[in-house]
Amino acid sequence: MSCYNQAMSLVVVGSVAYDGVETPHGKVERMLGGAATYIGLAASYFTPVKIVAVVGDDFAREDVDLLAAKGIDLEGLERVPGKTFFWEGKYSADMNDRETLRTDLNVFADFDPKLPERYRAAPYLLLGNIQPALQSGVLAQMRDAHLAGGDTMNYWIRDYRAELLATLRDWDFLLINDSEARMLSGERNLRRAAARILEMGPRTLVVKRGEYGAILFANGCHFMAPGYLLEDVFDPTGAGDCFAGGFIGYLAERGVNPHGGSVDMKDWRRAVIYGSVMGSFCCENFGVDRFRALTRDEIDARFQELQNCTSF
Amino acid sequence: MSCYNQAMSLVVVGSVAYDGVETPHGKVERMLGGAATYIGLAASYFTPVKIVAVVGDDFAREDVDLLAAKGIDLEGLERVPGKTFFWEGKYSADMNDRETLRTDLNVFADFDPKLPERYRAAPYLLLGNIQPALQSGVLAQMRDAHLAGGDTMNYWIRDYRAELLATLRDWDFLLINDSEARMLSGERNLRRAAARILEMGPRTLVVKRGEYGAILFANGCHFMAPGYLLEDVFDPTGAGDCFAGGFIGYLAERGVNPHGGSVDMKDWRRAVIYGSVMGSFCCENFGVDRFRALTRDEIDARFQELQNCTSF
Repeated sequence: MSCYNQAMSLVVVGSVAYDGVETPHGKVERMLGGAATYIGLAASYFTPVKIVAVVGDDFAREDVDLLAAKGIDLEGLERVPGKTFFWEGKYSADMNDRETLRTDLNVFADFDPKLPERYRAAPYLLLGNIQPALQSGVLAQMRDAHLAGGDTMNYWIRDYRAELLATLRDWDFLLINDSEARMLSGERNLRRAAARILEMGPRTLVVKRGEYGAILFANGCHFMAPGYLLEDVFDPTGAGDCFAGGFIGYLAERGVNPHGGSVDMKDWRRAVIYGSVMGSFCCENFGVDRFRALTRDEIDARFQELQNCTSF
Repeated sequence: MSCYNQAMSLVVVGSVAYDGVETPHGKVERMLGGAATYIGLAASYFTPVKIVAVVGDDFAREDVDLLAAKGIDLEGLERVPGKTFFWEGKYSADMNDRETLRTDLNVFADFDPKLPERYRAAPYLLLGNIQPALQSGVLAQMRDAHLAGGDTMNYWIRDYRAELLATLRDWDFLLINDSEARMLSGERNLRRAAARILEMGPRTLVVKRGEYGAILFANGCHFMAPGYLLEDVFDPTGAGDCFAGGFIGYLAERGVNPHGGSVDMKDWRRAVIYGSVMGSFCCENFGVDRFRALTRDEIDARFQELQNCTSF
């Protein structure tokens, strides 16, 4: 991993967890999961990643090893007495819906992210879906982020609205799905919803649409990226987080810095496509399994395939 | 309309009807509708159209005039004693679902399409959604169609399967929506569904995905077209038919003839984009109202806008 330019490194904050998942393709009782895990693994193909998260003393050596093998900096992975966050869910037959069967926050309930000194100068920050005030606290610890943004969810939008709005004001970009965009803006139409959200602070909004891809809104324009048409979806868990990882990872690789001068929209468009690509790979196997053997060449080949499938 | 090359003319077969429609934007008790109406109006911007349909003696002069003003040949518009087909429906708040409140087939119940002699040499044929045996009967009346295909629906797929399969064998292309593709193929995954359907006869399949656009499957490849992101959807009635009209209209304008030599996939891709464009215009007003003033320049500008919104 020494070939990376350390200046481009990315801090990822969020959950590292164990998941139990059932899909029409099978059931796994317990496997590595969590937003920071998926984001970090996906981003690691593009840029050096530093994770901030908390796990319990049950966190397995082999899971640490997987993250380390991808060159992920684990100094910010705090280990405390107790159990790691556990989530269990079951997907519907068409995998467009899922039911949460169990959520044991465990050590994650007291997560108070503290950035190691070495992390604070990193130019890129991706805040996974955690309480908005904690997200703000992380950004305040960064010295000079070129590009900072993140994800949120219906729970924070509904019950922590004021906190969330205060947090969003300082973000360069927000990544949410279409139903969250509607809830946050109060607008049903996506184009109107996006216009409202861009007034809340972030200069860039990415609306994820599941299998239908994503739309980037910025500078009064939008860019529509398709979802890659998979022949088999084994497990959609983490696909949205992998989208985020591919997106911010590529922007970091390209050294995109909207505060430091000109912005090439081509980089942002391609970042959305790489997000779509990473989300699609995630679905090809249970949990993080697809990333054990995935190569950058496969990623770039799928990027090219999406270009071939959409140009006219 | 004399500037058109008559050799490229398109025969459109289907319903010409009156619709009552309620959407969150308002309610119209009775307005011009029907698949052949929407297909014909959308296609008329690209190629000369000849309609085959039946109406009752209540069919209004102003509606004949609208079709005629677009240069549509109405020799095949049979007028018989009785009432014109009437459909009434109400859309859900997000307009993704609709409830049929009333279907009075009236004179359409005995529709037995007979092509005027002048129509039989037309090179292009679009069969709107009618009984599969009637669709076959129309194709049999054509002398040498370069390109023939059409639409169907869940009712024929479920209850007239054998007839439908016999009909599809002779089509060059099939245009259906995603749920119909799943039902026809028995496959939930769209890529697998498309592979199955292409074994049934048509060399080209277009799967419409509503607001998410459409996918063209042919020659072992696929092309994904986005849906145009509208700021206001007034009435989605007829959008799928307008997609079909833009699609076949553009292929006719380009003189595409898969039986006569080489096929340029670029024409097919652009035909799907023009389909998406025409479907989007249709939603901008109630019924066919958007087509009263729509110009080809506006159509081409939206085509260009879709190119700008998707290239990377």
